[in-house]
Amino acid sequence: MINTLFLPELREMLAEGNAEELSEFCTALHPARTAEFMEGLERSEAWRVIQHAEQGLRAEIFSYFGHDRQLEMLEQEDETQVAQLLNAIPADDAVDLLSGIGEERVKRLLSLVPTADRRDIMRLQSFEEGTAGSIMTTEAACIDEKLTVREALDQLSRQAEKLETIYYIYVLDETKHLRGVLSTRMLVSAIGKPDTTVGELMDTDIVTVHPDDDQQQVAQIVAKYDLLAIPVVDEQRHMLGIITHDDVIDVVLEEATEDVQRIAAVDPLEDSYIRTAILTLAWKRGMWLGILFVGALLTAFALRYYEGDFEAYGWLVLFIPLVIGSGGNSGAQSSTLIIAAMATGDVKVTDWFKIVTRELATGWLLGLFLAALSFVPAVLLAPDQWAALVVPATILLVVLCGTFSGSALPLVFSRLGWDPALMSNPFVAGINDILGIVIYVAIARLILG
Amino acid sequence: MINTLFLPELREMLAEGNAEELSEFCTALHPARTAEFMEGLERSEAWRVIQHAEQGLRAEIFSYFGHDRQLEMLEQEDETQVAQLLNAIPADDAVDLLSGIGEERVKRLLSLVPTADRRDIMRLQSFEEGTAGSIMTTEAACIDEKLTVREALDQLSRQAEKLETIYYIYVLDETKHLRGVLSTRMLVSAIGKPDTTVGELMDTDIVTVHPDDDQQQVAQIVAKYDLLAIPVVDEQRHMLGIITHDDVIDVVLEEATEDVQRIAAVDPLEDSYIRTAILTLAWKRGMWLGILFVGALLTAFALRYYEGDFEAYGWLVLFIPLVIGSGGNSGAQSSTLIIAAMATGDVKVTDWFKIVTRELATGWLLGLFLAALSFVPAVLLAPDQWAALVVPATILLVVLCGTFSGSALPLVFSRLGWDPALMSNPFVAGINDILGIVIYVAIARLILG
Repeated sequence: MINTLFLPELREMLAEGNAEELSEFCTALHPARTAEFMEGLERSEAWRVIQHAEQGLRAEIFSYFGHDRQLEMLEQEDETQVAQLLNAIPADDAVDLLSGIGEERVKRLLSLVPTADRRDIMRLQSFEEGTAGSIMTTEAACIDEKLTVREALDQLSRQAEKLETIYYIYVLDETKHLRGVLSTRMLVSAIGKPDTTVGELMDTDIVTVHPDDDQQQVAQIVAKYDLLAIPVVDEQRHMLGIITHDDVIDVVLEEATEDVQRIAAVDPLEDSYIRTAILTLAWKRGMWLGILFVGALLTAFALRYYEGDFEAYGWLVLFIPLVIGSGGNSGAQSSTLIIAAMATGDVKVTDWFKIVTRELATGWLLGLFLAALSFVPAVLLAPDQWAALVVPATILLVVLCGTFSGSALPLVFSRLGWDPALMSNPFVAGINDILGIVIYVAIARLILG
Repeated sequence: MINTLFLPELREMLAEGNAEELSEFCTALHPARTAEFMEGLERSEAWRVIQHAEQGLRAEIFSYFGHDRQLEMLEQEDETQVAQLLNAIPADDAVDLLSGIGEERVKRLLSLVPTADRRDIMRLQSFEEGTAGSIMTTEAACIDEKLTVREALDQLSRQAEKLETIYYIYVLDETKHLRGVLSTRMLVSAIGKPDTTVGELMDTDIVTVHPDDDQQQVAQIVAKYDLLAIPVVDEQRHMLGIITHDDVIDVVLEEATEDVQRIAAVDPLEDSYIRTAILTLAWKRGMWLGILFVGALLTAFALRYYEGDFEAYGWLVLFIPLVIGSGGNSGAQSSTLIIAAMATGDVKVTDWFKIVTRELATGWLLGLFLAALSFVPAVLLAPDQWAALVVPATILLVVLCGTFSGSALPLVFSRLGWDPALMSNPFVAGINDILGIVIYVAIARLILG
């Protein structure tokens, strides 16, 4: 729902060129709300409004515009103004945005950005998507360990306005090696002892990550240690940048969505659902549907192989969907539970024995329950009660196979270094389809002779 | 993997009662690592070690022990020491822990906790699980708006050590109404202007939540506004507490796991997978398997209704799993994509027209692709090429039905106020099973006469 409350006033202010009121509009509210109130404006109107905010605030308001609007602004608006904006937004966000617009334009814009910022942006551009390097920001609060608490506070005060976060302060030596870390809270606590030095206060046991580390791993570390930010260092412990808590929440959300997509047999979308082109969507779904399709085709040939049995006992055909479905559903439950538990770190591959025995135990309970449920309709549709036993006996075995393969396959794939979320469900489905038919016919032959 | 590096030394220190070295061990490392190094100790040994840390640090190290060990400590160790610990950990965490131990013990422990903390804990206990109130902490940095920057820093310094977070400072009036908020970064930036007052610096446009708000909604707000903490206020804007960024990450992870479980037709587990009892696991899976089972049973009766058709054209039976599977898989893809996009706020129910048309367009592409794939085996298994056309025609229609029902049902359930993640997949599966059979027979009759 677009908020139209301020639109007429804003347009009037723009028409009059009323700089004072426009600048007041920009400062009065939380930047996120300011951006919301401008949703109904044309792109170029919104751009003109935020030119009346001072640089830092302008970048903040801009960060709350929709992604498409942001890209259009970078692409279309005045180059000098855009370069100023790029200069004010965190380098990691700038890299993200620049990857969405034309190369020629990027070159021209970067040539207008001050050298130091340009270098930061270009360095970040070199890290692969999904790594710690790609989500870090190069700007962090840094001080010298010889400073006293009072001096450190003064220096921090001068850095505070330019930085995305000042809640950890990093202590570097002359060659940019990371020596220690100090939280602003520790520094503020020490105000009563103004002559203490930073070196005395700082922690030297620092949790760090490398730029090539996987972003999901980084998120897990940050969640485990309850950090607000984590420093990124190279092999020689040179400080490269920090990853802040808000980027970590974004990573957690992004990875969760991707896992869900993989579980539903969709190759992870790079963009949001609604922004993904139909052809891309069809491709990312079609490839896995194709694999599942081949599995189901094999089932068709298995059925053909047993055609004689199904012709002799026609009523067996009625329960084919039930048999296949029971194995598939219980297998999908198992594999999904195990994949989710591995993703959050609840279980590891080394817990395999415990996991598989738990799943087999659960499989017995579920199998007996579904077998009992299936006996009634089986008696109704089969020629006699003895023959009807084929159905519950099959269901029990099929559910056991489902929970076993559903728990074992993610562990095996994970052990082989393959992505269990991506591989497990199609394989579990395929295996259970065929096994279901084989078990069904084997039991029918045993009971019906 | 349990780290055994320090175990012999720690045990020796304990045996000797070497208070100095034990207290050094507790302070030397990050509390999370200190806790890790003690994993190999017996519960009571670890408890004795942390008694050598000062109260705040002791609570921090304790927070990194495993959940089971924490509960055992609260249950078994000396009551006075445990009460001291409860006093030092944030009230929201204390409430979580106390809910896991015996009522009698809780009463005795609470009677040993200072009155103010006891009241905090008991107030938090009254909020329902999953609400903002249940994850908030009652301790926040608060100052008076008449203070100058210098005075505010001094006061913050005195509060800093006791508090979980000091990165936002809340300005309350005499009756505890929330008047404004100031970030520590703003305060530190203003060190150069020491006579400015808090009232002049503070923001009065504050994003707040109510204690009864859903925790997932809170997490979305925090992520949207990139906050480190969010205040919880009642109807009259009295400040009740704050929710901090680490609790928000936990909520995001918890809700993502629950959504994945719902999508796999598992009723969300309250505990981690590995800690859930087998019977609970079987119950939470069995109820949904039962519902899916009923859907598949209806398919059995549908097949029975069409028995004559399948007897006349026996080869049609071979493709039943393929037909049902194609509808089910493409439907599950659609509903899962829509559910995930709604959970992250990418799409809303009001976007229904766009969503359904996108899914139908994708459905055409996927349907044509799978239909083409199916034509070859159909020619191999059917009596002639004309008859073989039944299979691709059915697959195309079934995939269209799958993507349509898979996109429409989550929207309908969401509009009705039901949980789309929980309801959609079983219903989509059930509907597509039956529709698949109906479409198959209808097309067979049309083509085969």
